[in-house]
Amino acid sequence: MSIDFSPVGLHDDLVKAGHIIPVGVQGIFGRGPIFEEVLRQFDHLVTRIAKDDGAERMSFPPCLDRKVLEKSEFLDSMPNLAGSIFSFSGTDAQHQELSARVHAGQPWQDLLTATHVCLTPAACYPVYPSFTGKLPDAGRLVDMQNWVFRNEPSPEPTRMQSFRVREFVRVGSPDDVIAWRAKWLQRGLDIMLSLGLPAKTEVASDPFFGRGGRMLAANQREQQLKFEVVIPVISSEKPTAVCSFNYHQDHFGKLFDIQLANGDVAQSACLGFGLERIVMALFKTHGMDPAAWPSSVREVLWS
Amino acid sequence: MSIDFSPVGLHDDLVKAGHIIPVGVQGIFGRGPIFEEVLRQFDHLVTRIAKDDGAERMSFPPCLDRKVLEKSEFLDSMPNLAGSIFSFSGTDAQHQELSARVHAGQPWQDLLTATHVCLTPAACYPVYPSFTGKLPDAGRLVDMQNWVFRNEPSPEPTRMQSFRVREFVRVGSPDDVIAWRAKWLQRGLDIMLSLGLPAKTEVASDPFFGRGGRMLAANQREQQLKFEVVIPVISSEKPTAVCSFNYHQDHFGKLFDIQLANGDVAQSACLGFGLERIVMALFKTHGMDPAAWPSSVREVLWS
Repeated sequence: MSIDFSPVGLHDDLVKAGHIIPVGVQGIFGRGPIFEEVLRQFDHLVTRIAKDDGAERMSFPPCLDRKVLEKSEFLDSMPNLAGSIFSFSGTDAQHQELSARVHAGQPWQDLLTATHVCLTPAACYPVYPSFTGKLPDAGRLVDMQNWVFRNEPSPEPTRMQSFRVREFVRVGSPDDVIAWRAKWLQRGLDIMLSLGLPAKTEVASDPFFGRGGRMLAANQREQQLKFEVVIPVISSEKPTAVCSFNYHQDHFGKLFDIQLANGDVAQSACLGFGLERIVMALFKTHGMDPAAWPSSVREVLWS
Repeated sequence: MSIDFSPVGLHDDLVKAGHIIPVGVQGIFGRGPIFEEVLRQFDHLVTRIAKDDGAERMSFPPCLDRKVLEKSEFLDSMPNLAGSIFSFSGTDAQHQELSARVHAGQPWQDLLTATHVCLTPAACYPVYPSFTGKLPDAGRLVDMQNWVFRNEPSPEPTRMQSFRVREFVRVGSPDDVIAWRAKWLQRGLDIMLSLGLPAKTEVASDPFFGRGGRMLAANQREQQLKFEVVIPVISSEKPTAVCSFNYHQDHFGKLFDIQLANGDVAQSACLGFGLERIVMALFKTHGMDPAAWPSSVREVLWS
């Protein structure tokens, strides 16, 4: 089987089929009705798999309290990917200046000031401040679908600036958290294989910034803190991560003062399904028309 | 019947019931599972009402091409509500400075630069650049659910910084566009009344900025360009807008070069259901537990 793995090829195929609607800047595009239907069905499939886990469901907006970003140390490791929201807080006269510059096609952003809000840089971040007080004995498990922002414009369709993640966050004792991540790593792989996707798991690292980042990434791999399920979507040599499984040890427990029932610092792990990427992997693998997908795949998704 | 209309009262009731999850900054909060279930059912209700209209369904991310914001003239009228996304594009040394300032609790935003992306300031904006070429004879109708950002932190729960809007956009001839808006204004009112909500329609205006803005608002009212369906949620004297119906005349047609089949500039109108506000109006009117809502309301929502 010979598959064309050029990024432009997939982008153009998705556009031609009406699955994505390009509207200007890279990594920001509309989604068509069939794309959304497949995404919704995959999301339901995850709900069915997770139904006996007793997760608390929450939903957060795409924006985040700036203090959470500052506290999280994300700006230490991936400052180039984070987005901060600026707005106009000036006078009538300054507003006239702003309008004049916008109409003249001149830079106007120096007239803005920072707000108290930023974009959600990772799907698990909004939930940590809600873990107030001591955890129950069994810890907690939260299930969310959140929009995530990454400042990385790219013509490559799977590398988006704004995308949805179905995310689970587990906080509790080290044993509970580690066992939970191991269970989901297998589940995540099984889900992809059940959809006829050529998936495998691998040890991974985050795209840490700069020179210091290389050491952070090596350390993360060494300790096997991050696993991914990957599928060839754009390239057969560098398959695309579609799910990510992260063990944070006591990182967030310390930062957000999350305590076990016995007063110890809680540990945490999270996992996220990159929903748009999974939909694109399905289109890439099985073709642009879901009606023509293998019946086994259709049965899993539309059951 | 005596209802407590204080904003703090509703906020606290929603928090106590687990319907909203405060996590720091005003106007940004999590939504609990019952809140989301009601929102989803209302969204389905709108889908059922609109099912024979033949709308094209699209979905856009919460972020928007900055050029669309610049072109739209939103910055002329409501610059204080718009959000622009800044990020870090500096060197390793500048990154060390950034990290040090964040950890020291000092301002760090002057180390950021503007990206090409902003927040969606109104739910209809992302779709206009997709109307390329001449419209078909009947014009076009698009159906979306998009996240909208407004820079207006408030303790008042219906005044959010980030919220979802179920939005329809109609482009076509003046007659088609005006008739479409009139039909939906009645439908919007009927939907709210069918849910037992004390709704009414009224002529409205946008919150235009500054001195010049007062004239814009007066003109908008004079020409009846904006109607709203309003419901008492926070105050009986100043009911809350839950749907908005806007006739743009040829504003967007000119800005985005949208043409009728005969080459004339297209007109447009849009309408939006403020999904979180409608859910809050239901909780305020019928109580915090949907299981105890009037059976007529439950039948409409869960049918």
